Amino acid sequence: MARYQAPLRDMKFLLYDVLEIGSYSNLPRFSEAPRDVVEAVLEGGAVFASEVLQPLNAIGDRQGCKRNPDASVTTPKGFKEAFKQMSDDGWMAISADPQWGGQGLPRVVSIPFLEMCSSANMAFSMYPGLTRGAAEAIQVGGSDEQKKTYLTNMMTGKWAGTMNLTEPQCGTDLGLIRTKAVPQPDGTYKITGQKIWISGGEQDLTENIIQLVLARIEGGPEGIKGISLFIVPKFLVNADGSLGARNGYQCGGLEEKMGIHGNATCVMNYEGATGYLVGEPHKGMRTMFVMMNEARLGVGMQGLAQAEVAFQNAADFARERVQGRSITGAKAPDKPADPIIVHPDVRRMLMDMKAFTEGARAFTYWTALQGDLEQVSPDAHVREKAEDRMTLLTPVVKAFLTDRGFKCANDALQLHGGTGYTRDQGVEQFVRDARIALIYEGTNGIQALDLVGRKLAANGGRAVFAFFNDLEEFVSSNDGDKDLKPYVEGVALATGQLKEATMWLMQNGMSNFDNAGASSHDYLQLFGLTAFAFMWAKQAKAALALRGGGDRFYDDKLATAQYFFERVLPDATSHLAKVKTGAGSVMALPADAF
Amino acid sequence: MARYQAPLRDMKFLLYDVLEIGSYSNLPRFSEAPRDVVEAVLEGGAVFASEVLQPLNAIGDRQGCKRNPDASVTTPKGFKEAFKQMSDDGWMAISADPQWGGQGLPRVVSIPFLEMCSSANMAFSMYPGLTRGAAEAIQVGGSDEQKKTYLTNMMTGKWAGTMNLTEPQCGTDLGLIRTKAVPQPDGTYKITGQKIWISGGEQDLTENIIQLVLARIEGGPEGIKGISLFIVPKFLVNADGSLGARNGYQCGGLEEKMGIHGNATCVMNYEGATGYLVGEPHKGMRTMFVMMNEARLGVGMQGLAQAEVAFQNAADFARERVQGRSITGAKAPDKPADPIIVHPDVRRMLMDMKAFTEGARAFTYWTALQGDLEQVSPDAHVREKAEDRMTLLTPVVKAFLTDRGFKCANDALQLHGGTGYTRDQGVEQFVRDARIALIYEGTNGIQALDLVGRKLAANGGRAVFAFFNDLEEFVSSNDGDKDLKPYVEGVALATGQLKEATMWLMQNGMSNFDNAGASSHDYLQLFGLTAFAFMWAKQAKAALALRGGGDRFYDDKLATAQYFFERVLPDATSHLAKVKTGAGSVMALPADAF
Repeated sequence: MARYQAPLRDMKFLLYDVLEIGSYSNLPRFSEAPRDVVEAVLEGGAVFASEVLQPLNAIGDRQGCKRNPDASVTTPKGFKEAFKQMSDDGWMAISADPQWGGQGLPRVVSIPFLEMCSSANMAFSMYPGLTRGAAEAIQVGGSDEQKKTYLTNMMTGKWAGTMNLTEPQCGTDLGLIRTKAVPQPDGTYKITGQKIWISGGEQDLTENIIQLVLARIEGGPEGIKGISLFIVPKFLVNADGSLGARNGYQCGGLEEKMGIHGNATCVMNYEGATGYLVGEPHKGMRTMFVMMNEARLGVGMQGLAQAEVAFQNAADFARERVQGRSITGAKAPDKPADPIIVHPDVRRMLMDMKAFTEGARAFTYWTALQGDLEQVSPDAHVREKAEDRMTLLTPVVKAFLTDRGFKCANDALQLHGGTGYTRDQGVEQFVRDARIALIYEGTNGIQALDLVGRKLAANGGRAVFAFFNDLEEFVSSNDGDKDLKPYVEGVALATGQLKEATMWLMQNGMSNFDNAGASSHDYLQLFGLTAFAFMWAKQAKAALALRGGGDRFYDDKLATAQYFFERVLPDATSHLAKVKTGAGSVMALPADAF
Repeated sequence: MARYQAPLRDMKFLLYDVLEIGSYSNLPRFSEAPRDVVEAVLEGGAVFASEVLQPLNAIGDRQGCKRNPDASVTTPKGFKEAFKQMSDDGWMAISADPQWGGQGLPRVVSIPFLEMCSSANMAFSMYPGLTRGAAEAIQVGGSDEQKKTYLTNMMTGKWAGTMNLTEPQCGTDLGLIRTKAVPQPDGTYKITGQKIWISGGEQDLTENIIQLVLARIEGGPEGIKGISLFIVPKFLVNADGSLGARNGYQCGGLEEKMGIHGNATCVMNYEGATGYLVGEPHKGMRTMFVMMNEARLGVGMQGLAQAEVAFQNAADFARERVQGRSITGAKAPDKPADPIIVHPDVRRMLMDMKAFTEGARAFTYWTALQGDLEQVSPDAHVREKAEDRMTLLTPVVKAFLTDRGFKCANDALQLHGGTGYTRDQGVEQFVRDARIALIYEGTNGIQALDLVGRKLAANGGRAVFAFFNDLEEFVSSNDGDKDLKPYVEGVALATGQLKEATMWLMQNGMSNFDNAGASSHDYLQLFGLTAFAFMWAKQAKAALALRGGGDRFYDDKLATAQYFFERVLPDATSHLAKVKTGAGSVMALPADAF
């Protein structure tokens, strides 16, 4: 059976020694988060994740969700109690606004907790995750009355929330949405249509479910510019806040999936259900994008989270399983064979995983910190820079972390040999669960297109040039540091390659958009590697400052940084070469040649 | 639901235009295989695979195998009838020796059929695959009496065969085997012990099952040098060939696995079962390696086979699914959106798959041809070269094709978006099924170690230098061909990188074996890419000679070759860089730092 232990040491190192969140204590939210509070959150969160959520992970996979004849849905045994505990103990709302029942801590403090929950039980964690996203969309786009009606109960986890986007004929292309909203004399709308792949669309965890539904108001414009956003509660809410009539929709079925069996993926049939318009008519995508960008960072983190738990189990297995002898001579002569961790190729896989998870954690937390600074910094320039960084890097976090996180989980399975392929060990579940993260909230191909098509060009390239500046400033300001030199050189090398690829795209992607599309995947990979190089150099810098004094943590960190630069970063070269070939051979064949 | 159509055109192109098997018609086996016979085998095989086996693939995944209270095992509905048809219609024994009921065709003619079966139904195909392997081991190592008793029934598929190697405490390291063989006065042995992960160890397809079991004769040497091989039939065979007493073993349980559910993965409990020694005592590994090397080529082909069927379904989906508009302007203005095949990133995935499957097919068939030449060439030098090539390249075929084949199946899932993650579409089954191929018959890490540790060094490096010679001869003999130039240059580049990596290994891997181990994975990847470059250039050469005349097949082949050299081969550079970093940062951390 799999196990999970929160990597608290690494989390604290990142928050305090790399990101130095202690230096922001004069800012709102951060002022509510002195170190003892943060450490209590981390440590309490670790117990909740590993003692409450993790034991339900395999159960959720085995039992899955069940749709009953009355169209209700039963989640796996124990999920309901765990959800209630999460809500009752205040874990749901760590970084939510105190006005709506939250504790108002910075996002960068809540993200380690979210990582832990996702490592411990990804399928479960999607229920609160989507609830938070839906609540934030209402917070951004809803009326005061809507906020008052829904937010506290959603933020605290008394009610759940969902996103209803996809329909059978449209996933990526939401302009094709057919679900219809007919205005009623009382200002509400009747919603009719079918939504599919709705995570948590129906469940037995909460007494109410607040569906956020994209639909087209009758007579509105065609395409994406005619899409509006609606709140469609499972039970209508009376003026006094009590629950009223059951709304007119049903769960029509559950998808059978490769993984995340503990999460109910619903077909939702709306049959004249009562909906409340969020924001302006036909402008629903704007608010939905707030939610989606949030969600994309969360999905990136799922890539990290599954990689982390898979890595931990692989490391245990590598230390425990004895098989063969070290090629440099027996290391455990008292045993019938050496533990397989002595074999360099096993070590290679473990180092790949360690270099990924620790790099990904730094990248995720750093991006989350930008989200905080964007909101709370008193300096408009800092806010702009923070927003630019977060906007630019969101598709990179989502796609790069889920691509490589899946690879990492898959390597963890590989390290287990045949044992990994059997269900009892639990590691193949990580692979199946992690697999969805490359797809939902916009496939990784869509993320790459978002990066090259929108994010690079926005504001005349302001964000990407500022990011190059971040990198180059790091390089120049650490130029004289001898110990840091190999890491700084790695950042400089990667930065040069990323700039070269960016220039190539600017010169060739505008004259032929297919060049941009054909190179987008490799460009995003190169971007992710460069961001990781930056994160690893930052970590190395912090480790160099703190090492000595007999704490091996910092030496291990430096050795892992070295591994990243020697053994992971070289991929950048081949991605650059691929970027620069453009669309020619990619688009050469006619469609029926495949 | 998934579909499969055998790529007959590509198969014929390879056999006749690239490998030119027509030129061997003076050799034994080949003389029995005129083109009309070969085409009848291909076309009849295609019908059998897509009409009989493919429809059972999803059923097998859903139903799985069931162990009954009496320890018998029921395979999925339809498997028994399909197995009987395969046997009755002569498909089992295409390339088997006519002395034992075979048709005696070359292996290179049977391998396309095996590919088709594996694409259509991997879990099913393992039953005949292992039967063939076990029969070949008996053919190589068994006594005349054993051959007479078992071979015809196994070769024709009346009986099945298995390999019993793994035990709970030993997978890779067979020196740890504990299963015991006690000599009996009548020359037989009593076999006692537990074997696990025995594919087809028990089933309801055949009236007898011939287990090949590795065990340690009581009092024999410790470790790998004390392992003997035994035939342990489910039913003892009487002198007249009829079935006698049930032997003393039982299936103790089935593994629950990530995939290949249609194949019964058994725990086998031997309790004083009657076994017959194959070959000499304590020399069982020698014969078992014959079977394993065979099997490794077959497993490599499974990587190709799952990639091919996944690719076909992805191509269909890309042509049919409409979503979004081409970034260069609408391509299907009459439809609500364009088919997604217009998007360059979708095309990139399809081209990756096409470049892989067609390269892998060439590589597999070329290697199979070496197996034929090794057996039937009258020229000792040709036989030696062919054997060297096959021995050297077996670990490359196994690991490179399963690694990249899995990636290909996974990309096919990705191309499907959310649809790919649901079970109905069938593509996620290809991913789960393909996953085992990276593990069994020696994990891909073991293959890499076999390549750098054994295959490079064998006979003073004779095989690897001869392979370099093959590559360089191809380059120099095609030097003047202008049209072929870009492909020849690609081969030259890859050859240079592979030689550089080989020299590095020779210089650094002997002084510190950990350097060889740490670089083995990237070295094997580089080797595979170089072999693919060779295969793609050979295909380009054949296509150049045949193009014109309005048949687009050859132009598409050349465009795909170009894609390989521009968009796949650049990975070689980063693998070379990783090889040359050696063991330093790989082995730097203590075991408990993970």
